[in-house]
Amino acid sequence: MSRKYRVGILGATGTVGQRFIQLLEGHPQFEVTALAASERSTGKTYREACAWRLAGEMPESVASLAVGAPAPPLDCELVFSSLPGGIARVSEEAFARAGYAVISNSSAFRMDEDVPLLIPEVNHGHLSLLDAQRKQRNFDKGFIVTNPNCSTIMLALALAPLDARFGIESVVATTMQALSGAGYPGVASLDIIDNVLPYIAGEEEKIESETRKILGQMVGTQIEHAPFKVSAQCYRVNVSDGHMAAVRVKLARTAKPDEVREAFASFTALPQELQLHTAPARPIVVRDEADRPQPRLDRDNGSGMSVTVGRIAPDGVLDYRFVALSHNTIRGAAGAAILNAELLIATGRL
Amino acid sequence: MSRKYRVGILGATGTVGQRFIQLLEGHPQFEVTALAASERSTGKTYREACAWRLAGEMPESVASLAVGAPAPPLDCELVFSSLPGGIARVSEEAFARAGYAVISNSSAFRMDEDVPLLIPEVNHGHLSLLDAQRKQRNFDKGFIVTNPNCSTIMLALALAPLDARFGIESVVATTMQALSGAGYPGVASLDIIDNVLPYIAGEEEKIESETRKILGQMVGTQIEHAPFKVSAQCYRVNVSDGHMAAVRVKLARTAKPDEVREAFASFTALPQELQLHTAPARPIVVRDEADRPQPRLDRDNGSGMSVTVGRIAPDGVLDYRFVALSHNTIRGAAGAAILNAELLIATGRL
Amino acid sequence: MSRKYRVGILGATGTVGQRFIQLLEGHPQFEVTALAASERSTGKTYREACAWRLAGEMPESVASLAVGAPAPPLDCELVFSSLPGGIARVSEEAFARAGYAVISNSSAFRMDEDVPLLIPEVNHGHLSLLDAQRKQRNFDKGFIVTNPNCSTIMLALALAPLDARFGIESVVATTMQALSGAGYPGVASLDIIDNVLPYIAGEEEKIESETRKILGQMVGTQIEHAPFKVSAQCYRVNVSDGHMAAVRVKLARTAKPDEVREAFASFTALPQELQLHTAPARPIVVRDEADRPQPRLDRDNGSGMSVTVGRIAPDGVLDYRFVALSHNTIRGAAGAAILNAELLIATGRL
Amino acid sequence: MSRKYRVGILGATGTVGQRFIQLLEGHPQFEVTALAASERSTGKTYREACAWRLAGEMPESVASLAVGAPAPPLDCELVFSSLPGGIARVSEEAFARAGYAVISNSSAFRMDEDVPLLIPEVNHGHLSLLDAQRKQRNFDKGFIVTNPNCSTIMLALALAPLDARFGIESVVATTMQALSGAGYPGVASLDIIDNVLPYIAGEEEKIESETRKILGQMVGTQIEHAPFKVSAQCYRVNVSDGHMAAVRVKLARTAKPDEVREAFASFTALPQELQLHTAPARPIVVRDEADRPQPRLDRDNGSGMSVTVGRIAPDGVLDYRFVALSHNTIRGAAGAAILNAELLIATGRL
Repeated sequence: MSRKYRVGILGATGTVGQRFIQLLEGHPQFEVTALAASERSTGKTYREACAWRLAGEMPESVASLAVGAPAPPLDCELVFSSLPGGIARVSEEAFARAGYAVISNSSAFRMDEDVPLLIPEVNHGHLSLLDAQRKQRNFDKGFIVTNPNCSTIMLALALAPLDARFGIESVVATTMQALSGAGYPGVASLDIIDNVLPYIAGEEEKIESETRKILGQMVGTQIEHAPFKVSAQCYRVNVSDGHMAAVRVKLARTAKPDEVREAFASFTALPQELQLHTAPARPIVVRDEADRPQPRLDRDNGSGMSVTVGRIAPDGVLDYRFVALSHNTIRGAAGAAILNAELLIATGRL
Repeated sequence: MSRKYRVGILGATGTVGQRFIQLLEGHPQFEVTALAASERSTGKTYREACAWRLAGEMPESVASLAVGAPAPPLDCELVFSSLPGGIARVSEEAFARAGYAVISNSSAFRMDEDVPLLIPEVNHGHLSLLDAQRKQRNFDKGFIVTNPNCSTIMLALALAPLDARFGIESVVATTMQALSGAGYPGVASLDIIDNVLPYIAGEEEKIESETRKILGQMVGTQIEHAPFKVSAQCYRVNVSDGHMAAVRVKLARTAKPDEVREAFASFTALPQELQLHTAPARPIVVRDEADRPQPRLDRDNGSGMSVTVGRIAPDGVLDYRFVALSHNTIRGAAGAAILNAELLIATGRL
Repeated sequence: MSRKYRVGILGATGTVGQRFIQLLEGHPQFEVTALAASERSTGKTYREACAWRLAGEMPESVASLAVGAPAPPLDCELVFSSLPGGIARVSEEAFARAGYAVISNSSAFRMDEDVPLLIPEVNHGHLSLLDAQRKQRNFDKGFIVTNPNCSTIMLALALAPLDARFGIESVVATTMQALSGAGYPGVASLDIIDNVLPYIAGEEEKIESETRKILGQMVGTQIEHAPFKVSAQCYRVNVSDGHMAAVRVKLARTAKPDEVREAFASFTALPQELQLHTAPARPIVVRDEADRPQPRLDRDNGSGMSVTVGRIAPDGVLDYRFVALSHNTIRGAAGAAILNAELLIATGRL
Repeated sequence: MSRKYRVGILGATGTVGQRFIQLLEGHPQFEVTALAASERSTGKTYREACAWRLAGEMPESVASLAVGAPAPPLDCELVFSSLPGGIARVSEEAFARAGYAVISNSSAFRMDEDVPLLIPEVNHGHLSLLDAQRKQRNFDKGFIVTNPNCSTIMLALALAPLDARFGIESVVATTMQALSGAGYPGVASLDIIDNVLPYIAGEEEKIESETRKILGQMVGTQIEHAPFKVSAQCYRVNVSDGHMAAVRVKLARTAKPDEVREAFASFTALPQELQLHTAPARPIVVRDEADRPQPRLDRDNGSGMSVTVGRIAPDGVLDYRFVALSHNTIRGAAGAAILNAELLIATGRL
């Protein structure tokens, strides 16, 4: 931690972009020196370009920064990206080719074979893909590391200790997702008042495919996706922040309820060992009350970086059921990317 | 329909009791002549005893009725009951023993072996239990017929055509339930604003057991519960009316997606054939849009008596997935009981 | 009612446009024969162009109509308009000039001196402006009649009997307005969850000026605006439909509380006398309970055409205070325009 | 700050009681050593007795404390009370008589002539009432100090600089109040979903009377209530925390808009000068954006102790209008009482 990295935010005015700025304020390893967003914002200061929607005020340190276009060069060493899918594919590759480390929350490259889909507690070994990535894409010192979809992170992190301890044979997840996951303006208030929406475009497919990549194994220089099946149904509910998932799992080996609980509660991994700045002390917080976790009460556990698990019980159709909850714009987006960057520094890749 | 039956409402001041009164207003076969509720209300007129919470005004026809105790005699021939579980067990049996037909929405007797748990479109054959019931309980002309839990009705009705056509091997249901399901005052607003509650006392067990009884077969004079497994996880969401369920099913026989859709859409049964007053033209309404059903838009389909099904698709873990929605205090409670009574009349049991 | 008028809807796909179509379905005097909307929709059928957001299904009678541009000619005799302000000014004048009666919910012409800002119960005498309008604008048989802003209608209708009976010296109104007033997509869900917005663009000015025009007197061929002052503060609250206003009034003459109540409760006017189809039996419904009116319970009073008034009491600073509530897209928009058209027919102007 | 005072919480399990405990955790001057609540809780540990409803976990420091009855003796020097009105009158007087300083958030004694109704920034001079109080009530070293109703604090604090600078002639306030103001379980979710409630029992009267006491002057040993009139209408809206008020004021002297703004923005008082621990740097935060303050974005300003004022503008009926917002369980309740206690220490009365 001897020096601060100069970072740029791509998509700086959006919901996740604002979270990046909020979480990086006062961060010991990063200093925001560049901001980029869509054409509508370029040429303005951040204060002019951005309608700040988080509680509290826009940090003074970024308010007077000029917003540039999401294309190199930018005055920074690495970029955090939350660009929309379409533009992300072009912009992020351009930054990587120009020598920047690209730490992306976008979906653009997540499923590319040579791109790590990283959750530091779960699959840091996948970072070895970066060598192949550089070679194949003719990157010099730049590279792209992605984090999963906001719901997938929560699910995969919760499944990781079960997979390690008992093996997983199938997963059935039903999500109840927060409004902030749709960005801003996102969901119209008239669509969600006194209502639930049974559809989030692309979400079910992302959870079903990303989870298997994350929990896959490196075989040689490639990831072999996990062999189990995942079924996801996704719902939007009237909650500001905090995605929830009702999960059932079929395990490869028999497990007693207290062993399952213990697998969650005792889970700890490399980020905790390395004491990464953004890593929560407990990646998974277990609550034993009948009515927890709840989005409003539990989304900020571990400063928004813990997944809270509750209602662990045997299931009549699969083997176990439980509820998982995490903060979708912290552990599920900006915080995830920042933790990824911290791991890259700690392991000498940055 | 040559005459009107004189009916009493047990639990008349509650959420479901008010629905009974609203739905019976102007009903061609029933006239509300008696009201009963807990001690707090007895001796008052209904206008004094009841804080009317449905849109529109309390029907004048009941406003000046006196509220009595939930014990026979009451000035009526049959009673609709939405008493709470504890008191229901005593009160309903007393009414049946005193010669009244008891059409109950309470959970008290649902799982008793000699009590029909009736959905007229699904298991009217179970009414043959009434003979055994009378004999065992020494009822003379009275009897008890129950309707299922509000979520179970929706689930069992949606499963019925699949079970008939393809056979069911297992069911995984995750519910998102409305506030009115908890009665009044029910859920505290501070508990549900910007939140989801992952727990509804007793609900998961009810769905798991009741569904199998409803879809069971009469074998001799007893019901053999359906042999498949049901897994239910239940959530409370910030919706006034309209329970929703994310459902996966494993079928006994292979089925193509359009066959599954067709099984839902073409489903019709005895109540439709008999043109019962409260029976919807279509017990199951299929919506093909990606984002339907939704509680606010679809709960009133079929005047609140249809179950709306959407998002029918193959599932990676079980065989099919879909979403079901219905109005929890109409098809899920008061309307269900009224339809039960209509069937009893039409089949000569009343 | 010997014949049906053929009507066109300008702005047919919007929130108010959909209400027009819903309310005109089965109307004895009008038949929707033409639809117009912005460029994005023209050339499509209504089914294709419009995401129907009201409960129930889009009426079959309009689903296959083609959506045209909001410019004459259209296959109809009169047009109901809910076009946005900018385009309305050009489009509505073009229709009037081309001979169509224009019944507008838009704000474009409301404050023009020669345009009636009509509430049939309040100021039908203002229709005499139409002669001057035709002359000044060189309209042949076409003309423009507008209805007020959704909050103003409620306020002016509630003030009318007080003004007639006691005279008004000043009005202080604080509104709590529903989401549907902002159209679709309108207010972002992230802006309103667990929140109140203290600002609605242009709303306070509209209420303050329109109210005085409506309650003004015809002096010769012009309206002399009412001489009292109006102070409006406007808030957006998390309610789907139903605007509410906390009102204080200073009266010109002393009045006892029961006289004020009686002035509201006994109020009736020309539309009731003429038994216009859309006119509610009681323009103002008085509720005496301490906690009424409430949007969810009272917005549909009089099929959405009544203003409900409650909590009438002396006020320590002005003379009286009360709460008014009405359905903002029925009495406050589409229903208001339809009632205007009914009055024009009944008085021989159509 | 050389020592820590040992404090007891009366009403420790309620909404405000939990806030007391949250805000006192880590407080430099107070240590919670005793808890009291109603009979239902006595004899249990706090962990057993209290369903903790704030985000985060119950502080370990209080979890194992035993909950006692709200009657002396308690193991503490002073008590913070948020008992309900009825029991508060008996309990608080008993504690004061037994020698405890009673810092009360209850309404029981607020309007008693010899009891300070204290906002440290506004009327610390009213503490001189304590001498008369002791004498009249035969208190030895105990006494009772109250803080105002949650809405009144916000209003009176916002009015204070206007009154000091320009004089106030009348006040019209319309409040939109948060759910937590009703305690727990408080408002039923079915009453507030898609709704606004136009009634809060006793609230309008409290605001109208308390405001005039707070802004009154000590004349000899008594408070002469402020001579201006206050009109309050109170509404409950679907917001968790954060009361809002739409305010109009008539001033005694003419003021320009920038002078009014300046009066708010520059306001500072004794608690700021004394740098009391809980005193916000700015008692009143002025926001100049058209759409601020908003409950969700501004309730935590000044750690919940600032009143945020916005939309300052001339008013057509009175002289000025503005919007005020503050956190109802922090500045409006627990934080207010704690600040009162800090002032009592700093001024040598404790």
